[in-house]
Amino acid sequence: MTHAPLHGHHLIAGRRQAEAPPTLRATDPSTGSPLEPPFAEATAAEVDRALALAEAAFEADRGRPAEHRAALLDAIADEIEALGEALVERATAETGLPAARIRGERGRTCGQLRMFADVVREGRWVDARIDTARPDRKPAPRPDLRRMHVPLGPVVVFGASNFPLAFSVAGGDTASALAAGCPVVVKAHPAHPGTSEWVGRAVNQAVARTGLHPGTFSMLHTASPERSQDLVRHPLTRAVGFTGSLRAGRALFDAAAARPEPIPVYAEMGSTNPVVVLPEALAEEGDAIADGLAGSLTLGAGQFCTCPGVVLGVRGPALDRFAERLAAAVGATGPFTLLHAGIREGYEAGVQRWDVTDGVRLLARGTENDGETATPALAAVAVVSAAAFREDDGLREEVFGPATLLVEADDEADLEAAVRALDGHLTGTLWGTDDELAARPALVATLARRVGRLIVRGYPTGVEVSPAMQHGGPYPATTDARSTSVGTAAIERFARPVCFQDAPEAVLPPELHDANPRGVWRLVDGALTRDPVGAPGRTEA
Amino acid sequence: MTHAPLHGHHLIAGRRQAEAPPTLRATDPSTGSPLEPPFAEATAAEVDRALALAEAAFEADRGRPAEHRAALLDAIADEIEALGEALVERATAETGLPAARIRGERGRTCGQLRMFADVVREGRWVDARIDTARPDRKPAPRPDLRRMHVPLGPVVVFGASNFPLAFSVAGGDTASALAAGCPVVVKAHPAHPGTSEWVGRAVNQAVARTGLHPGTFSMLHTASPERSQDLVRHPLTRAVGFTGSLRAGRALFDAAAARPEPIPVYAEMGSTNPVVVLPEALAEEGDAIADGLAGSLTLGAGQFCTCPGVVLGVRGPALDRFAERLAAAVGATGPFTLLHAGIREGYEAGVQRWDVTDGVRLLARGTENDGETATPALAAVAVVSAAAFREDDGLREEVFGPATLLVEADDEADLEAAVRALDGHLTGTLWGTDDELAARPALVATLARRVGRLIVRGYPTGVEVSPAMQHGGPYPATTDARSTSVGTAAIERFARPVCFQDAPEAVLPPELHDANPRGVWRLVDGALTRDPVGAPGRTEA
Repeated sequence: MTHAPLHGHHLIAGRRQAEAPPTLRATDPSTGSPLEPPFAEATAAEVDRALALAEAAFEADRGRPAEHRAALLDAIADEIEALGEALVERATAETGLPAARIRGERGRTCGQLRMFADVVREGRWVDARIDTARPDRKPAPRPDLRRMHVPLGPVVVFGASNFPLAFSVAGGDTASALAAGCPVVVKAHPAHPGTSEWVGRAVNQAVARTGLHPGTFSMLHTASPERSQDLVRHPLTRAVGFTGSLRAGRALFDAAAARPEPIPVYAEMGSTNPVVVLPEALAEEGDAIADGLAGSLTLGAGQFCTCPGVVLGVRGPALDRFAERLAAAVGATGPFTLLHAGIREGYEAGVQRWDVTDGVRLLARGTENDGETATPALAAVAVVSAAAFREDDGLREEVFGPATLLVEADDEADLEAAVRALDGHLTGTLWGTDDELAARPALVATLARRVGRLIVRGYPTGVEVSPAMQHGGPYPATTDARSTSVGTAAIERFARPVCFQDAPEAVLPPELHDANPRGVWRLVDGALTRDPVGAPGRTEA
Repeated sequence: MTHAPLHGHHLIAGRRQAEAPPTLRATDPSTGSPLEPPFAEATAAEVDRALALAEAAFEADRGRPAEHRAALLDAIADEIEALGEALVERATAETGLPAARIRGERGRTCGQLRMFADVVREGRWVDARIDTARPDRKPAPRPDLRRMHVPLGPVVVFGASNFPLAFSVAGGDTASALAAGCPVVVKAHPAHPGTSEWVGRAVNQAVARTGLHPGTFSMLHTASPERSQDLVRHPLTRAVGFTGSLRAGRALFDAAAARPEPIPVYAEMGSTNPVVVLPEALAEEGDAIADGLAGSLTLGAGQFCTCPGVVLGVRGPALDRFAERLAAAVGATGPFTLLHAGIREGYEAGVQRWDVTDGVRLLARGTENDGETATPALAAVAVVSAAAFREDDGLREEVFGPATLLVEADDEADLEAAVRALDGHLTGTLWGTDDELAARPALVATLARRVGRLIVRGYPTGVEVSPAMQHGGPYPATTDARSTSVGTAAIERFARPVCFQDAPEAVLPPELHDANPRGVWRLVDGALTRDPVGAPGRTEA
């Protein structure tokens, strides 16, 4: 299949548009060379147009059967696959990530879209509840009450740099927002505008094929923080999805909270994903854990939100041996190509900060070679005492890239104090025997309270896309610990409950009709069932 | 049963305390007379102590079985009932509400507490999800993932003035937060400190009886906005529940959003609960609707969050007749006693604003008499054109009290435009025949989008406490349209999901154990079931 070449324009409600001249250009991080074509920078008028058309789509399509949304999600997956190698080549060039990784991420992205199609078809996510009328109740009759979740309206999604497909134009935020019934306006990440255009065009094709309003999807290119603020402040925007840095995420959150009408911002931000290694586990399998951690922290050049950036243990010969092994494994890695120059600068600044901080000792850096990459980065392992880690806020900040900080506690009380000093994280990992864990309920609970996912004897990288996944966590890991950005529950972010009282079926969505035509699970008079509601006049159970 | 007299002190973790001298005093709104005793104003140190002890309680009790929380909720209901007439007499004196209303509200409050006890015992609310391991999956094994909701931590609840029991010290916010497993610090409303002390003492008794940590509950008296901000800004506070004015609720929301670590604020604020009367319904039963609305809007002296403060219809003889009937019914009501002088001032200022606004015409005021009340308020009906209503933001603001604004549209398009101009509301009501409603999907959808509960041929006052209730709505009705403050779903506000990966049972809460010892509904490998998880090694379905 051949495709028209990249045009560098925005995609607004199915049409390419660009008011401003093209000034944005992607760079191949392996070579440092600019990539063609240049991309247009969005104007405030284009932001307004995209949101106005998203609102028009929301109004036009809100009565459609859920199956239309499911078909859209399936069609997007099909269209992304139909892009073939053009997508893989462009994503590889724009990110420096290997083709195999891009293909894997494409598989995950399409799988995720189809999973949300299934979620929409199954319909349980609307949490339908029916309390039937009790006309004879004393002192007052009980009305008929029927409640379910409905979509919020237009959602703005900010693409992430580190997952050019799975957390970008048609990634988890877009898929879950569309699944909920919300039109989406994407701000493409400026590090991979070409990849974004390919995927955006695939979404457009899918919208056209399924006959939905074209305003269901728009995509804008911009590198301007001001334009990002415009997207969040726009009065028609009803929610925001974001994956990226703490600084950028917090700025969007603040803008949304300061609106005349505040809106939710689901920002997934920094996380160092602490790994706690307990003494017995350290003694029994310290070598294997060190090797596994070296692999986990350098996976994807350490550019995963779940990269294990801090490891905590109790000082002693076993921890010394573990540190040596970890340093050796990390030291043997060659230079990594980071996604773009900004990430490399931040990474090097972070490692340098460790290097000049009193009490922190660099144990290892990766091996230099004569590689061709324009943004080479050497992995790093450093070590610090738990006391210093607790006292120096800067040491608990994320160093985004293939680096980890080993925190040495004097004893278990010192270890628990260090865990208590942790901020919120996406994940926390515990290495310990079953007996060790069972004997330390306070430590386990303290870590669990600070994370969204608690891993036992494993590695934080590798995030399943499934019903039980939780990819979120207390601030600053996210701005909303009550939500997940991965897994089926991500759809809940973009909906709100509405209750219909004594409404005839003409007013009710099908999920709330007596007959239950969609066969969804519902809570009827307090009991979970897929059965229709009994004949009118039924009495209290 | 006799009770020790009111002491006017705070209740901090089971003990009466007061650092500052008593300076707050309740007033009987029927007589204007101050009531004994005076109450202490909370200090910043007392705020800190209450939160620190709440945190201690959270840490101490987090491993306890859910049954302990259920027993606490039942015990609170029992202890409130055991207060007997002392509570009714004080609440009546402090609010001017009749004893029958207070008794009814007490029944609702205790019923609500026991309902949440049942929710806790049933356990479905934790939304347990289990994705079993697939060790043989290619290319990578799938880990065992188990996810459920866990409590956020200490919650601050601001008591409301208009429901001295059901939305106050042991009202819906407190009951749902305790049910979720969160300790609660209540800021008592200064209009009914004595009622608050009675109920707070009942909660203390219940905490002691069930053996929970005394920091599970504290209650502070304050009339200082600064102290309220302290409560929201305290680093240990994890969420806030509030019912009250838009101004106060927004101030708390802003303070929470500006924290270093933002927290959710569930503020239920203003709402005028629009009622749309369509032509056929108006022609067929306009008289009955007018009478019903007059009753609904003067119920509780119009001091319900769901008071119908605006009624919209299409100009014509039927609407004229309806307006006359409504004006006559409202004009025949005597003076109402409002909760306190501040509410009366706000009410009179709102009605005066109508009176001096060009295009607004006062149709009726209630009848004056020689009543004994110190804060008499006369009900009011005014009328305005839909065009003026759309253009003047001030006319869409809530006038809290027994007043309603009749909005006359020129035609149905004008009516729909007026509905479109509405802000967010707790409820919206539609009067129309089934045929009329079925013929106006856009009008129905437009109103539904702006409300949390859509009522057909009914009145907004009267809020069921049940699974399908939604008491919330888009801003400015609340700060979080995704939540409800009434009904079983209110518990979801105070929890967040945590995923356990490959965790042994010693680490898992019982809801996630294979055997399902609590028998809760769970999503196991995508299927809803109460069955135990099969033997280990089970393969993909």
